[in-house]
Amino acid sequence: MSAPPPKAFQDYYPDHLSWCYGCGRLNAHGLQIKSYWEDAQTTLCTFTPRPFHTAVPGFVYGGLIASLIDCHCTGTAAAACYQAEGRPMDSEPPFRFVTGALHVDYLRPTPLAGALLIRARVTELKGRKVVMAAEVAAEGQVCARGQVVAVQMPEAFLKGP
Amino acid sequence: MSAPPPKAFQDYYPDHLSWCYGCGRLNAHGLQIKSYWEDAQTTLCTFTPRPFHTAVPGFVYGGLIASLIDCHCTGTAAAACYQAEGRPMDSEPPFRFVTGALHVDYLRPTPLAGALLIRARVTELKGRKVVMAAEVAAEGQVCARGQVVAVQMPEAFLKGP
Repeated sequence: MSAPPPKAFQDYYPDHLSWCYGCGRLNAHGLQIKSYWEDAQTTLCTFTPRPFHTAVPGFVYGGLIASLIDCHCTGTAAAACYQAEGRPMDSEPPFRFVTGALHVDYLRPTPLAGALLIRARVTELKGRKVVMAAEVAAEGQVCARGQVVAVQMPEAFLKGP
Repeated sequence: MSAPPPKAFQDYYPDHLSWCYGCGRLNAHGLQIKSYWEDAQTTLCTFTPRPFHTAVPGFVYGGLIASLIDCHCTGTAAAACYQAEGRPMDSEPPFRFVTGALHVDYLRPTPLAGALLIRARVTELKGRKVVMAAEVAAEGQVCARGQVVAVQMPEAFLKGP
């Protein structure tokens, strides 16, 4: 018998925090990205843009790239906090993050041709704040680099309605 | 007889550059933002998020905010270059921009409640580069601030297929 497929970071989010346009598994209109550990330091999200996610024909829309970096990094922040405490992602108390600041450098036009690989790693984890560096690659080439400052959600968000 | 409504910056883009997910008037799946001069220095885009443009229920998705800042600023960059040369936006040669860098500071959760006002102004215009400061307001309060470095499109993009 084979093992069940690994759950993505976003699959651990409680239902009331699973409506995000970028990463909420319950948002039928959204991107529904999935993030995983690639190795002990790096997280990976694979996302294939749809044909209408274009900037100039043939190239990926920069706002989508920013969105992918954003949501992959808030997920990475949560995963890294569980990892730092040596406990699984479905244990209490939950770690959930919002974005304090997002920076993207667009290095070259990103070809709209198959999957994008979004990778992130934590550069600072201190108190309620996690800072991450991210990159987006297409066809084997890094096309954008990002930095995200994620901050733990206010209690009111965590509790839900 | 009343005057015709003013054309938005994006209405001057040639057809082959009007497919952008954020600002292309021909992208039926996209946001189709419209940007105008508010006064001699400031540009304005008014955009009403749809219910699924959410992060946490009740609040606007940060990736949408980044996208709005991005596209409103590339449009602003073009408008500012025509203004600097004292010629209309349908005159030749055309000014069209791509994003070199995008930065967003999320100051507070942005309520998902009606229109967002995205304003931008040029802070530097030099050679092929335009730097802009932007802000996004909801319900009378600034919720995010952004900075965009826009660079004139490579000739290959401008010419089209």
